[in-house]
Amino acid sequence: MIQRSGSIACYQQISEIIGKEIAEGVYGSGSQLPTEAEISERFEVNRHTVREAIRQLKEEGLVYSIRGKGTFVAREKLLYRVSKKVRFSQQILEVGHMPGTRLLEQATEPATIHVARQLELKHGDPVLALKMLRLVDGIPFSLTTSYLPADRFSGLEPHLEGSFSLYALLKSHFSIDASRQESVFEVALPEVTEMEHLQIAPTNPLLLVRSLARDQYGAAIEYCISRMRGDMGRIAITFGDEGPKTTALEGLSGGTHESD
Amino acid sequence: MIQRSGSIACYQQISEIIGKEIAEGVYGSGSQLPTEAEISERFEVNRHTVREAIRQLKEEGLVYSIRGKGTFVAREKLLYRVSKKVRFSQQILEVGHMPGTRLLEQATEPATIHVARQLELKHGDPVLALKMLRLVDGIPFSLTTSYLPADRFSGLEPHLEGSFSLYALLKSHFSIDASRQESVFEVALPEVTEMEHLQIAPTNPLLLVRSLARDQYGAAIEYCISRMRGDMGRIAITFGDEGPKTTALEGLSGGTHESD
Repeated sequence: MIQRSGSIACYQQISEIIGKEIAEGVYGSGSQLPTEAEISERFEVNRHTVREAIRQLKEEGLVYSIRGKGTFVAREKLLYRVSKKVRFSQQILEVGHMPGTRLLEQATEPATIHVARQLELKHGDPVLALKMLRLVDGIPFSLTTSYLPADRFSGLEPHLEGSFSLYALLKSHFSIDASRQESVFEVALPEVTEMEHLQIAPTNPLLLVRSLARDQYGAAIEYCISRMRGDMGRIAITFGDEGPKTTALEGLSGGTHESD
Repeated sequence: MIQRSGSIACYQQISEIIGKEIAEGVYGSGSQLPTEAEISERFEVNRHTVREAIRQLKEEGLVYSIRGKGTFVAREKLLYRVSKKVRFSQQILEVGHMPGTRLLEQATEPATIHVARQLELKHGDPVLALKMLRLVDGIPFSLTTSYLPADRFSGLEPHLEGSFSLYALLKSHFSIDASRQESVFEVALPEVTEMEHLQIAPTNPLLLVRSLARDQYGAAIEYCISRMRGDMGRIAITFGDEGPKTTALEGLSGGTHESD
């Protein structure tokens, strides 16, 4: 079953066997792994070796532990590539899933100090606030609020229906070529409304991303706060151009486990 | 106190007054805000207006709520700028804090399938694994494991002491000019060892970053998994060069509240 004399440590062999079984669906997403005692018996190794094997699987993001409950197979996270140009719908389609957008609220309101500063407006200038629920394969994925300078985008509202792409609308109706200038990533625990919209428990952390986009002339056109379900996605960013991009993608995304 | 007839809604004025008081230290980090009833009495507005004001403060990241307990002032998060070249120590110094690195473990071990794939090695090839605790002003900030191809870096170990900079060592001892090729961001809840090293509760989520770095010739030289305390930091990334960088920094970082 495992080789005790080779150059690869027993715990590594065990972690690789279990990793393969997870990839093959022997243990499905969210299901519990066998206990330490059971794994120890199966491979005829001691508990310490089992623990090392599980530590390895955790490091690869394949499993997680809940204290007092056991070890569980992690949900496979969608790899969402963020770049200057790529947009939500396009990116989700590229990784083989179906994007959706549901407009929850839209309002024109005076800019707060915070929003005015991002959009380089005056405090109280009118901003269009769009609260959207992003879906992947019909499942709530992120809750996003976009603020746009209202004076520049009058006439946009009637087009915000169905599964629209905001950037496609800015392009087709206002000839604006938007690009992301900066994103700030942090973690947050969900508030009640976020829990409801994203259908998550209070202990399910979010990846919160604040982004600023500018038009082709350098004017700030969108300040966006996005709250992504931490158990559903992760965000990849490529710096510069060294190395073949496909290698990096395959590499950091965890290999075979990723290719759904 | 607040203007009821102007163009700025009452809730916005209240949120801005409280935001200013937080920035000025009237309510310190971690302390509880007055209750809804108290705020409502102070500004002579109804509860709904108070709730809107608090929602606004939450959106700006200044406060957070715990169900059944109240609203608390968020810890001011350090803004950590990630780019192709910038390294931990340098970046922490740039934002006016004192970086520290403590080497917890170092070992040469055979590469797992996962690590071998990142570093473009063969399964079982020797890798140098460095587990490090990163500190900011003496407080544990992140727990990082770096994997390097051991064959390329023999003789590195004796230099890994004190508050070393890994990339400075690679430069001075191996003439290697490392740059980050890709980073993948996700959220995770801490494991027991992470809770111990980072001195956090099980409900305190981490920002987990997996990064690949290459040398100036394109060879993969470091695969790094970093777990940052979610309540201590956030990570900023700038895309391209549009717009003045300082504006973006000040803007997305939340203005005056940031400049500690």
